[in-house]
Amino acid sequence: MKSQRLHNVRQNMAREGLEQIIVSAPASVFYLTGIWVEPQERLLALYLDNTGKAILFANDIFGLEPQDDLPLVGHSDSQDPLDDLAGVVKAGKLGVDKAWPSSFLINLLAKRPDIRPVHGARPVDLARQTKDGAEQEAMRHSSRINDLVMDRTLCLIEDSIVENELAWQINRIYLENGADSAGSQLVCFGPNGADPHHAPDQTVIKPGDSVTIDIFTPFNRYWCDMTRTVFYKTVSARQREVYQLVKKANEAAISLVRPGVLLSELDKAARDIITAGGYGQFFTHRLGHGIGLDCHEPPDVSASSTHAASPGMVFSIEPGIYLPGEFGVRIEDLVLVTETGCQVLNKHPKDLQVIG
Amino acid sequence: MKSQRLHNVRQNMAREGLEQIIVSAPASVFYLTGIWVEPQERLLALYLDNTGKAILFANDIFGLEPQDDLPLVGHSDSQDPLDDLAGVVKAGKLGVDKAWPSSFLINLLAKRPDIRPVHGARPVDLARQTKDGAEQEAMRHSSRINDLVMDRTLCLIEDSIVENELAWQINRIYLENGADSAGSQLVCFGPNGADPHHAPDQTVIKPGDSVTIDIFTPFNRYWCDMTRTVFYKTVSARQREVYQLVKKANEAAISLVRPGVLLSELDKAARDIITAGGYGQFFTHRLGHGIGLDCHEPPDVSASSTHAASPGMVFSIEPGIYLPGEFGVRIEDLVLVTETGCQVLNKHPKDLQVIG
Repeated sequence: MKSQRLHNVRQNMAREGLEQIIVSAPASVFYLTGIWVEPQERLLALYLDNTGKAILFANDIFGLEPQDDLPLVGHSDSQDPLDDLAGVVKAGKLGVDKAWPSSFLINLLAKRPDIRPVHGARPVDLARQTKDGAEQEAMRHSSRINDLVMDRTLCLIEDSIVENELAWQINRIYLENGADSAGSQLVCFGPNGADPHHAPDQTVIKPGDSVTIDIFTPFNRYWCDMTRTVFYKTVSARQREVYQLVKKANEAAISLVRPGVLLSELDKAARDIITAGGYGQFFTHRLGHGIGLDCHEPPDVSASSTHAASPGMVFSIEPGIYLPGEFGVRIEDLVLVTETGCQVLNKHPKDLQVIG
Repeated sequence: MKSQRLHNVRQNMAREGLEQIIVSAPASVFYLTGIWVEPQERLLALYLDNTGKAILFANDIFGLEPQDDLPLVGHSDSQDPLDDLAGVVKAGKLGVDKAWPSSFLINLLAKRPDIRPVHGARPVDLARQTKDGAEQEAMRHSSRINDLVMDRTLCLIEDSIVENELAWQINRIYLENGADSAGSQLVCFGPNGADPHHAPDQTVIKPGDSVTIDIFTPFNRYWCDMTRTVFYKTVSARQREVYQLVKKANEAAISLVRPGVLLSELDKAARDIITAGGYGQFFTHRLGHGIGLDCHEPPDVSASSTHAASPGMVFSIEPGIYLPGEFGVRIEDLVLVTETGCQVLNKHPKDLQVIG
């Protein structure tokens, strides 16, 4: 077990009034134990209480070994995975991780009607929000490579390239540079860029297209995530106007990042600029998200966020303008909150670029 | 809505004694509505009851439109996503999809302590197990391409190729042939093949290696999944023996597939052959899994499966032998249960092949 992290989590449990919790998110279990398992439909549950008890419940198929300070309770596919856990939890309030599959909770409630499940992810989520030194270095490393991957990606854009091909090349570059895995990058040409989550398809590039490249992958478990938008061969006055507005919003929000600033103020600062420019209704999502062992993790950087920035937090600043049928622009950087301000983890330039 | 499928689900609800259910799995929502959304941490929930009510609750960010027969209740990121759903569910038993995040269920229970959550995935899971005509054609199509991809993959194996490179090439071939996406293929050289879930790495091929290629991806939402094992340059007597045993187990199980056969009998038939050959302890996983809109879906094809085969089911038959430190062999085909037996969806040959 990672004792300092466990200590922080137990402090958070006390603050939240939680005497016992179930941790199930693979990244959270890894954060506390160093064990990474993707359990899919099988059970992986770390039980923690306020007396110092920590027990890992896991399907035998994961092939885990007990550790000195972490007893392991295994079960096979033919056993009820909740039997042992039901024998350990105490009556009353039980904090439950947010994405624990409902089927497990329903099963546990059937065996133990005396427990009362409540939201239980915050103690670990709050601890994970503050990256320690090793984590900060891991995230700097990951974003440094992402800058390089973006450079190489932009060099590959040429006549007749299709979105899927470019996405495939990005994944290849990631893997060549030591990424843990490579997944579904976002590559959007022209009108496809008006959908913030457009998945790459067989669309061929055309002169005058906006090209939005949103690339993210983990290195040594820690994610990078960056978006750049460039224009192919030509750029219209309207594209230029929208681009400069998004860039201004990105830079304005970043300039405000320091300990104590409310994350909702960052969202507002970016949104106010885009709204004043006349495009407020086309900035259709929150400003950003926390990132670390998961690509999206707390804190939320939105109008409804209740968090203030604090040293060690890492989150994205990614304003965008999406014009249906026309084009889209998004510019995303990761920032690490420092004692006095922030470090922008992405160095890739943001000046308007027309390529090809 | 897909009315015939909805009708089947409602019949299953009646059989299971469920008057209302929440469907949340993306593939299940798609199966019933034709709408595909990956909600991540946001809410996507299809509420169905036994009076004909069907309502889709979804975050506005997904950009969905109501359909004539499917009212849509939207919410923004700044609203409580459960408020509207809590106003619709009826007191008493509520069937809940298996992977619905516990945080939603806990939130709903807090607002509606008069509901009693129970396992609620079976009505849709059972319906999805029986592929209709269009689904069967989609799965035949997907596996036809998979045969071609396997052909092309085996041609790429040459001196000094590394697992990662071959895995990239497979994904590239998939995308060139119209795959929806391409992900993490399994490519295992030599001793790596002794881990059934070994992820490709920088291992270089060597003469005498077993080469296990397990490739799977969706086309038009429906998955293919096939494994072939070949040998590079030479094959030892022990490799040959193990290969023939696995092939015999694969063929024996397939020869038994017809309506009414218990899926546990298929597992037993394959396992008995491998056990009789002296390798029983090295066949470390179930024989197979259902497949369709998800790569792994019910029914389970294992010793503990309670299902019997019925027309329209599609599942994998994938016996394997894994010898730690030495090599591994797995041979996997998909079968579609017909009225009289089964159709093997993979045509790629299974005779022992030494390549290179």
